[in-house]
Amino acid sequence: MAHLTVSVEYGIHCLLWLVGSGDTPLSSRDLAELQGISVSFVAKIFPKLEKAGIVSACEGVRGGYRLARPPEEISFLQIVDAIEGKKPLFDCQEIRSRCAVFGETAPDWATSGVCGIHKIMLKAENAMREELSTHSLASLSASFSRKAPESFFIEVHEWTTERTGSRKPGRRAKTPEPPA
Amino acid sequence: MAHLTVSVEYGIHCLLWLVGSGDTPLSSRDLAELQGISVSFVAKIFPKLEKAGIVSACEGVRGGYRLARPPEEISFLQIVDAIEGKKPLFDCQEIRSRCAVFGETAPDWATSGVCGIHKIMLKAENAMREELSTHSLASLSASFSRKAPESFFIEVHEWTTERTGSRKPGRRAKTPEPPA
Repeated sequence: MAHLTVSVEYGIHCLLWLVGSGDTPLSSRDLAELQGISVSFVAKIFPKLEKAGIVSACEGVRGGYRLARPPEEISFLQIVDAIEGKKPLFDCQEIRSRCAVFGETAPDWATSGVCGIHKIMLKAENAMREELSTHSLASLSASFSRKAPESFFIEVHEWTTERTGSRKPGRRAKTPEPPA
Repeated sequence: MAHLTVSVEYGIHCLLWLVGSGDTPLSSRDLAELQGISVSFVAKIFPKLEKAGIVSACEGVRGGYRLARPPEEISFLQIVDAIEGKKPLFDCQEIRSRCAVFGETAPDWATSGVCGIHKIMLKAENAMREELSTHSLASLSASFSRKAPESFFIEVHEWTTERTGSRKPGRRAKTPEPPA
């Protein structure tokens, strides 16, 4: 199994739709159905994003989620940590303390500080996290906007308008923009 | 579960003992019992290391494993890939092709090239792999040798000599050096 699960993929795709929807909240059901993915799966991701302060929830018929801060201030690392928790790359079992020649208790020199192998794994993990921290939702969204034709955004606008409109007649959703 | 499993931890610890044992082969049983870890678990790791050209096996009563090349030429990345296979950090499900407004078939612009999210995950994975490739078994071994007292290497030498000696009386193992 990959280190970063499908929840991260779903979560980031959903957040990209929220970049374009601005002040108009979209429900986890809207987001899931727009993307052809599991509604219940997406519904489990959003409370985590909300807890991390990445989205805010609005209750009611017109309810749903909005980004809680500008997409420039939402990094891939923050999203990954929000969804996965701080899952380590390597989970050191401290086997260095079990050497047969130590007998009952391992000496201090053998167990003090971080194990040399673990230390290198932490450096690798930090390199990965550092890279994830340099990419924001805003930069991903800008890159998608350059790729998708204008007609796509119009079609998505019509799709979401119809959805949010049917929840409260007379209300119009704002033009959505970049998905993934 | 962490991305890199306990097999990687066991494997690297075992390889460190082989740095010190030089031309004297150590069996997976010797290595497991010296470290107080599962014999059957270690026995499953070595064929992978052998297949990757990191260790070579010698058959017979005095059999076991030796490093197949100098420890300076064995990187953490090579060990991880040998044991885990090239496990991706992120397994893209290509959900970008399922957008509700696409109908039956997603347009080429939506599915061509690598998904923007996947692209960033690949950069993070490469940063991690790059870091792992800069650390060798030799540098880890040198760092352990600076930490452990001389008496430890003597004790381990006695332990392994007794083991290998009991397999073929009269034969003496070379002084082992750095574990983890």
